[in-house]
Amino acid sequence: MNAEIICVGTELLLGEILNSNAQFLAQQLASLGIPHYYQTVVGDNPTRIKKVVAIACDRARLLIFTGGLGPTPDDLTTETLADFFQAPLAERPEIIADLEQKYAHRGGFSPSNRKQALLPVGADILPNPIGSAPGMIWQPRTGLIIMTFPGVPAEMKQMWHDTAVPFLRSQGWGKEIIYSRVLRFWGIPESVLAEKVAAQIARPHPTVAPYAGNGEVRLRITVRASNEAEAQQLIRPVEAEIRQIVGLDCYGADDDSLAGCVATLLQQRQHTVAVAESCTGGGLGELLTRIPGSSDYFRGGVIAYANAIKVEVLGVNSEDLEREGAVSATVAAQMAVGVKTRLGSDWGISITGIAGPGGATLTKPVGLVYIGVALPEGEVITREFRLSAQRGREWVRHLSAMNALDVLRRQLLSQV
Amino acid sequence: MNAEIICVGTELLLGEILNSNAQFLAQQLASLGIPHYYQTVVGDNPTRIKKVVAIACDRARLLIFTGGLGPTPDDLTTETLADFFQAPLAERPEIIADLEQKYAHRGGFSPSNRKQALLPVGADILPNPIGSAPGMIWQPRTGLIIMTFPGVPAEMKQMWHDTAVPFLRSQGWGKEIIYSRVLRFWGIPESVLAEKVAAQIARPHPTVAPYAGNGEVRLRITVRASNEAEAQQLIRPVEAEIRQIVGLDCYGADDDSLAGCVATLLQQRQHTVAVAESCTGGGLGELLTRIPGSSDYFRGGVIAYANAIKVEVLGVNSEDLEREGAVSATVAAQMAVGVKTRLGSDWGISITGIAGPGGATLTKPVGLVYIGVALPEGEVITREFRLSAQRGREWVRHLSAMNALDVLRRQLLSQV
Repeated sequence: MNAEIICVGTELLLGEILNSNAQFLAQQLASLGIPHYYQTVVGDNPTRIKKVVAIACDRARLLIFTGGLGPTPDDLTTETLADFFQAPLAERPEIIADLEQKYAHRGGFSPSNRKQALLPVGADILPNPIGSAPGMIWQPRTGLIIMTFPGVPAEMKQMWHDTAVPFLRSQGWGKEIIYSRVLRFWGIPESVLAEKVAAQIARPHPTVAPYAGNGEVRLRITVRASNEAEAQQLIRPVEAEIRQIVGLDCYGADDDSLAGCVATLLQQRQHTVAVAESCTGGGLGELLTRIPGSSDYFRGGVIAYANAIKVEVLGVNSEDLEREGAVSATVAAQMAVGVKTRLGSDWGISITGIAGPGGATLTKPVGLVYIGVALPEGEVITREFRLSAQRGREWVRHLSAMNALDVLRRQLLSQV
Repeated sequence: MNAEIICVGTELLLGEILNSNAQFLAQQLASLGIPHYYQTVVGDNPTRIKKVVAIACDRARLLIFTGGLGPTPDDLTTETLADFFQAPLAERPEIIADLEQKYAHRGGFSPSNRKQALLPVGADILPNPIGSAPGMIWQPRTGLIIMTFPGVPAEMKQMWHDTAVPFLRSQGWGKEIIYSRVLRFWGIPESVLAEKVAAQIARPHPTVAPYAGNGEVRLRITVRASNEAEAQQLIRPVEAEIRQIVGLDCYGADDDSLAGCVATLLQQRQHTVAVAESCTGGGLGELLTRIPGSSDYFRGGVIAYANAIKVEVLGVNSEDLEREGAVSATVAAQMAVGVKTRLGSDWGISITGIAGPGGATLTKPVGLVYIGVALPEGEVITREFRLSAQRGREWVRHLSAMNALDVLRRQLLSQV
């Protein structure tokens, strides 16, 4: 038994809306353990919808449609399906009654709504508790099940949870679940990680697959199991193996973030941090304060964009700044110490770099960034990064802030 | 000539990522006037990818693939296409050279990257200026064109603009264009705007359509024309009418941002600004420094998260803070004046508010935010906002920073 998701709507082909329905349904199918191998998007066109149905019948046994159930002439999903399977449409009194009730306060439903009460003979109503468009659950031939949902995400989701999931469970699905855990890494390229955990990737179950995005690499560990507890039990030893191999480059799993890790480590130590930012302009502080309750560990910061502020507010030595330049390990160190002292925090962390597109010199290219960390005991460390300038200013700034969090995370961990 | 978008990736079938690539490509095809009737998603499975290719060849003449070009064993798009069309793969020295250059600072590319240099004989390289995975433009048989892109959106988009669009235009597409201009508004609800410009929305061409998202309202003016100059000429009078009706609530068009408007206004006056942020934690500074060359007008800021920093660094009166609370118009005003004085800027702007989920009191709910603006001549103004707490902490923080920019923008404009 496998499913295909078919989203109907010309607005999807015009790129006017993002296909979030497909993502929701994909997650739901995965969690119920119902395999699905294809998703299709097609416009509000009966001929092309029929072609899609013909293909889908050949390769899937549960066809899930979204869209095209509305009252307007371009909403064609139901009648096209009826036509394809040569089933007559019949008006359902239950739907008429439901529409009458829903539109009572507006003086009754409009004539165009009436077509929403037409379903193929033999189909069951899939009630829509929110909107006007009901869907259907229909077995037009043995071994084939069709479900239709409106395109409005809130309506589709509620109908899915209220009616589709209990129906699918009653048919015996959802006994096996597919469960994933995502491990998250910072400071290791995808290719290096893939080589280190090649033995894990090679195994058939649980599967381990790397993917990259937004500057970080992830490993997805996926299992089939009869329930969540069993899934976790299967995943645990694989995760432990990988963490053992990769070490500190693995910073967390699932919804963990670098900022969240730093927050937890600071809270465990009852330590506070303050930030001194140049090229990131506040982005590091913004990341650290995304977390509710960040006032526990975040005291504040100084955005020392102009050099005068590095000197006057943070106490950077003006001769050092002149000699080494604002983008230097020396200035990064003094900024970190300065903000720690000035704001009275346990840790100080600084970023100074060239985000571009301007500002590069012969010896200092766009993407050159120094991170400074002033430790509670008075020591200060710095790190140099040479980030890719090709991906632009926002990329350099994003990676700078993330690298700063990672440098702080590793320092916090090394102090255990 | 019509296109099909084919997105390859098991992560799409598992619902782990939203298919934003399909939306981007759909918009781009529409703007070039290239019809497309189907989109398909398939997993990293050669057998199923081949089935999808067989179907797509029957119904489209331009197949656009995203995903599956990476260095890992589950990246299979290129070899599967080569296999389907029975074309041998050949290593491209240009790609090897490009990889060597990109990975030079890491001591060379890894062995797994080498497979990214394999393309079918006869295919042209579709260069990837950002990442390691190049795509291809390939005519495996007469009347069929295949383009492949990596799944990483930033890479795919740049490759599309740099190489795919010029190629498609050289083939004669994009002769009639669909051209849109988006007007952007802040501080006016969608329903109010729609009523004000009802006459413009009612007209058939250019079409004017309102939409809302991310806290702002937009109007999209769309025309069909034979070229951009003609399109702009058709749009110009409609835009002028709308701007005349709506006034200052329209802050810009297309890629304009509130931060960009503020930047331009400050640069025109040769003025500088400094920020004092509490609940936004650096987010306002981050927005103001996204713009290249922001050092012209941005001096820096103080992230005064802890109250002690408001008093010690910004000079907020501790008795006032005690009496009125940190989230008050009085403290906002003193923060703005304090940062202006301390950092020596022409303008000072402050944000203090309750982002939630904690921190609310009986009289001060989550979402209560005060913005202060210290003007160059010494005057200081404050504004109170009561933002919706239901959409969460990040929503309150985002709207706080955007409202601060808007308050500053209106002050800058009123000074002309």
